[in-house]
Amino acid sequence: MPTTVGILAGGGPLPARVAEAAHAAGQSVFIIGFDGFADPTSLAPWPHECVRLGAAGRMLSLLREHACSDLVLIGPIRRPSLRSLCPDAEGARILARLGKALFAGDDGLLAALVRILGEEGFRVRGAHEFLFHSVAGPGVLGHFAPDAQALEDIRHGVLVAQTLGRLDIGQGCVVQNGVVLAVEAMEGTDAMLARSGACRQPGEGGVLVKLLKPGQEKRADMPTIGPVTLRNAHAAGLRGIAFEAGNTLLTDRAACVAEAERLGLFLIAIDPAAGMPCLG
Amino acid sequence: MPTTVGILAGGGPLPARVAEAAHAAGQSVFIIGFDGFADPTSLAPWPHECVRLGAAGRMLSLLREHACSDLVLIGPIRRPSLRSLCPDAEGARILARLGKALFAGDDGLLAALVRILGEEGFRVRGAHEFLFHSVAGPGVLGHFAPDAQALEDIRHGVLVAQTLGRLDIGQGCVVQNGVVLAVEAMEGTDAMLARSGACRQPGEGGVLVKLLKPGQEKRADMPTIGPVTLRNAHAAGLRGIAFEAGNTLLTDRAACVAEAERLGLFLIAIDPAAGMPCLG
Repeated sequence: MPTTVGILAGGGPLPARVAEAAHAAGQSVFIIGFDGFADPTSLAPWPHECVRLGAAGRMLSLLREHACSDLVLIGPIRRPSLRSLCPDAEGARILARLGKALFAGDDGLLAALVRILGEEGFRVRGAHEFLFHSVAGPGVLGHFAPDAQALEDIRHGVLVAQTLGRLDIGQGCVVQNGVVLAVEAMEGTDAMLARSGACRQPGEGGVLVKLLKPGQEKRADMPTIGPVTLRNAHAAGLRGIAFEAGNTLLTDRAACVAEAERLGLFLIAIDPAAGMPCLG
Repeated sequence: MPTTVGILAGGGPLPARVAEAAHAAGQSVFIIGFDGFADPTSLAPWPHECVRLGAAGRMLSLLREHACSDLVLIGPIRRPSLRSLCPDAEGARILARLGKALFAGDDGLLAALVRILGEEGFRVRGAHEFLFHSVAGPGVLGHFAPDAQALEDIRHGVLVAQTLGRLDIGQGCVVQNGVVLAVEAMEGTDAMLARSGACRQPGEGGVLVKLLKPGQEKRADMPTIGPVTLRNAHAAGLRGIAFEAGNTLLTDRAACVAEAERLGLFLIAIDPAAGMPCLG
């Protein structure tokens, strides 16, 4: 029996892509777009409703009304202030259940949300289960490959990103010829890339490394790379981007590869656990 | 016999303060101000000469001409590009001796510079050996002390800063109620504070933690806090600053404490090795 997939939609193009993919697989979809984050234009072709982030009661009853068995959380949402959230009665109950997790890092908060949605009877699935074309296996995408110095910088960046990730700090860093130019925390990848350009060191080179945090709830907050990431990396003078194979969503794989080719950047999917990829 | 202290001066007020302190201790001083970094006004009262950063030959002969036995490296300098450095003949030899260290992190480069100056016959001393009033022992400065949440954030920030420091990434981070808002790499403390304000999480609180990197060459690059740091921390909505006792220069201790009092911030010197300070 076909299930209905409920999509809790933040910003960007991915919520509509998950809808397309689920639809193509013969499933019904119903999208809840969060006011102020979801893109109404891309949701328009799909059955959807927009709700305030704090209106959890409305959200749960809509999901039940549309017989959603599975849920996908996808698209960026800025963590709201408690003051601006204005929770409805159900929202207040969920806030109470989140409890201490509200004051944890992103990982803790999102993991708690996924747990609560599970307790409410939904099966929470990862966007990558639908968007398997957006997830890359290990290897180079496009024609440009990292040179020896870039591979060295990627190796160092992996060590840095894993160390940061274990502390639930962030997913990425920029390394240029052995020097860590910038490290991502709450500001996000694009802001980090912007300042990397401003604090480049003498010489060429530089790579962005982006990894899933160890223990990160990937059903709620998978690292994402889009054409804009490539343009920002290029503007910062970098040579390319290394991201985690299997654990990174390319918002538009073809557009990412095309942009990398146009800008002369490499784009490489790596498996940090298996060591560096063979480029032979 | 009184020695002459040679001061290699980057920016800010500290080079002149080292000169004052050495003079007060009965030593002669001679300052070499680096073009584009040193503040000519504050150097004016002292015997000094300005040289290009690349003019190492000129620098060494000036130091020998003025019989400098001891050297102090003090005041910020942006790492120059090799292209813009235009080394003289001696400068080129020193670049060759730096070799791979040129492409290392700051720690590696500065440690190599200190080693080479030692090989040239100078005794390289730390600014803190002169500015002992600018270095604080463990404890709270001023009237405001961190509350329980701030102490918790300081503890977490110490863990983060030590982890970053071991990777030679940076000296500081900002933590708000358990969430790491920002981590310092090459952009420096002020830029990190500015973005911390922009990515604050719901709720009050927040601390800046600044520590010496483990193994950092403190004769060349000691963490520094000034009244501007306090104003920037306040602008970012933070409650206060925790810095490493004995290993941080307060550019102007009285002005720092006055600014903390005026802004209602705490300012606490901690000894990370000894655990958190007793506030009783």
